[in-house]
Amino acid sequence: MSIQNTTVIQNIRLDDNASQLIIVDQTLLPQKLVYLALSTREEFYTAIKTLQVRGAPAIGIFAGYAMYLLAKGQCAKSYDEFKKRFLLDAACLNSSRPTAVNLSWALKRMEKVVQMHDNINDAILALRAEAIAIHDEDIDMCTRISKYGLSLLKDGDTILTHCNAGPLATSRYGTAIGPILLGHEKGLQFHVYADETRPLLQGARLTSYELAKAGIDVTLICDNMASLVMKQGKINAVFVGCDRIAANGDFANKIGTSAVAILARYYGIPFYTLGPSSTIDFNTASGDDIEIELRNEDEIKSMWYKEPMALDEVKCYNPSFDVTDHSLLTAIITEKGIVYPPFDINLKKLFL
Amino acid sequence: MSIQNTTVIQNIRLDDNASQLIIVDQTLLPQKLVYLALSTREEFYTAIKTLQVRGAPAIGIFAGYAMYLLAKGQCAKSYDEFKKRFLLDAACLNSSRPTAVNLSWALKRMEKVVQMHDNINDAILALRAEAIAIHDEDIDMCTRISKYGLSLLKDGDTILTHCNAGPLATSRYGTAIGPILLGHEKGLQFHVYADETRPLLQGARLTSYELAKAGIDVTLICDNMASLVMKQGKINAVFVGCDRIAANGDFANKIGTSAVAILARYYGIPFYTLGPSSTIDFNTASGDDIEIELRNEDEIKSMWYKEPMALDEVKCYNPSFDVTDHSLLTAIITEKGIVYPPFDINLKKLFL
Repeated sequence: MSIQNTTVIQNIRLDDNASQLIIVDQTLLPQKLVYLALSTREEFYTAIKTLQVRGAPAIGIFAGYAMYLLAKGQCAKSYDEFKKRFLLDAACLNSSRPTAVNLSWALKRMEKVVQMHDNINDAILALRAEAIAIHDEDIDMCTRISKYGLSLLKDGDTILTHCNAGPLATSRYGTAIGPILLGHEKGLQFHVYADETRPLLQGARLTSYELAKAGIDVTLICDNMASLVMKQGKINAVFVGCDRIAANGDFANKIGTSAVAILARYYGIPFYTLGPSSTIDFNTASGDDIEIELRNEDEIKSMWYKEPMALDEVKCYNPSFDVTDHSLLTAIITEKGIVYPPFDINLKKLFL
Repeated sequence: MSIQNTTVIQNIRLDDNASQLIIVDQTLLPQKLVYLALSTREEFYTAIKTLQVRGAPAIGIFAGYAMYLLAKGQCAKSYDEFKKRFLLDAACLNSSRPTAVNLSWALKRMEKVVQMHDNINDAILALRAEAIAIHDEDIDMCTRISKYGLSLLKDGDTILTHCNAGPLATSRYGTAIGPILLGHEKGLQFHVYADETRPLLQGARLTSYELAKAGIDVTLICDNMASLVMKQGKINAVFVGCDRIAANGDFANKIGTSAVAILARYYGIPFYTLGPSSTIDFNTASGDDIEIELRNEDEIKSMWYKEPMALDEVKCYNPSFDVTDHSLLTAIITEKGIVYPPFDINLKKLFL
């Protein structure tokens, strides 16, 4: 079901009866702002899988509400049956995308609530509270991340970003885009170069959309133009999001992030990743242990286009993420502060 | 005028009456192989400007034949008038694209022929011979470049390339793709990763097309995936073309080439540019003196797409080339041999 022509973007919310989850369909931006109303497990699974909802924090928030609605919609006769179905639903959603840690993190939080109760009504109320808490905490985290990030910028700075880590990918402000939006609210002038981010064009479709709508000066470039604008001295800092940070500071983010990091190092430009602590996975020792999602070759060859841009017989390789080595990172900006190298020591100090 | 459905690709040739220039319309590949028959100055100018013909060597060959046809089509009453019109036509073609040196190089060769004669008929015959010579020399140069390039590869190697420097961009074999095609003819097995090369997708539309048609194992990737495939140890060497090489070895090539060079350096992969000596411009001291063509933002926002991928109010920056610093180059492969650093000394040694 879709609701069109609403003007204020609130990317994830429960409807007034708390019976459906309303999200912006991110696959249709920037030409159409369409809200989807979702309520079944299949709809939730598909929304994550097909990127109608995307961005690691947003997927976490989405998963919390989705599990609440699925729990509420059950007609289980016993708490055991309720719990069993709940875990099956959670496992199903968890299988939708492998790389972002926030999905399994949110599902685990919701599962813990179910484990802590022994009757269905109490559990449902507690699940609702937990889902709202995940959302509220994200808003709070994004605000804190934005403040820490802003402390690294000065008025007039130009920031390069890759993919989308703005409000659409999170709750409010966003992570990588948060400091820019917060600074703009405070009257500071920033300029942003947004990599278009092939193949799914999140930089063109979402980041440049969010920034232009917010009144921020944004210039869209192709991914392969970042080297030239850096060489021209136009870029003061690179801000990107993250989908999973390993214990040593290696982090997975949208494909191409590692290239931007290597270019920033070459040109002497500080390179930051911004993300909530839920993105840090101390069970993952280094980037070598992060599974990289491979997606369909149609995303490269034919999606978006009037006609395919390569012959049928041409193979494509379409990894959705890459891992940036911690040695390329100037700092990790979290809601609890800015973490500098050595990351293996300083991440543990702040979070464990 | 267009002729469809011919199966053998010969990208630039005179028709049987030597009255029209027949070219493959490179803007319609890979879905349609359409030949254009051109004869007017406006058609020639447009063909270069709109990239119906593209690739620095191909533009040089094209300009030679075009000037011959324009000279032949004149109805000048005196040699002075003939020469004046010829120079006007050459200036017009020269203004179509600024970055590749081969265009002005070929036009200067043709002008020299006109300056050396004093009657129209002799000049036209000599212009025809000069245009054919430019073409034949390119075939010879590409063959030599391919042999030198092949000497740097071993059976089973995987080569990454950016943009298109194959037969479509030149005469036969091509430059960057030449060693791979030549090696394939000799029974060697190579694998190629082709960057799709945004915004005009020459890697997807042309390189992967040429290689697949030649029976070579090719994998298409987005530009931002080169870092990951290099990190995975898949790439043995990077081969790219060049549009202009400065006296110090800095060189202009398709936007994104400098990024690939920086990545190759970071991962310890040899990085080569391949081009004929006509690409070397000793009047250009360094890359700082190379003019970079800026193209329309529609190429990023809306070209190829079913609907625009960014809002109207979003600005784009669309440089068509960038300059790769000579310090990132392992060697320059020319028809006269392989040039290693220091390039400022060794280029002069070989060519001056």
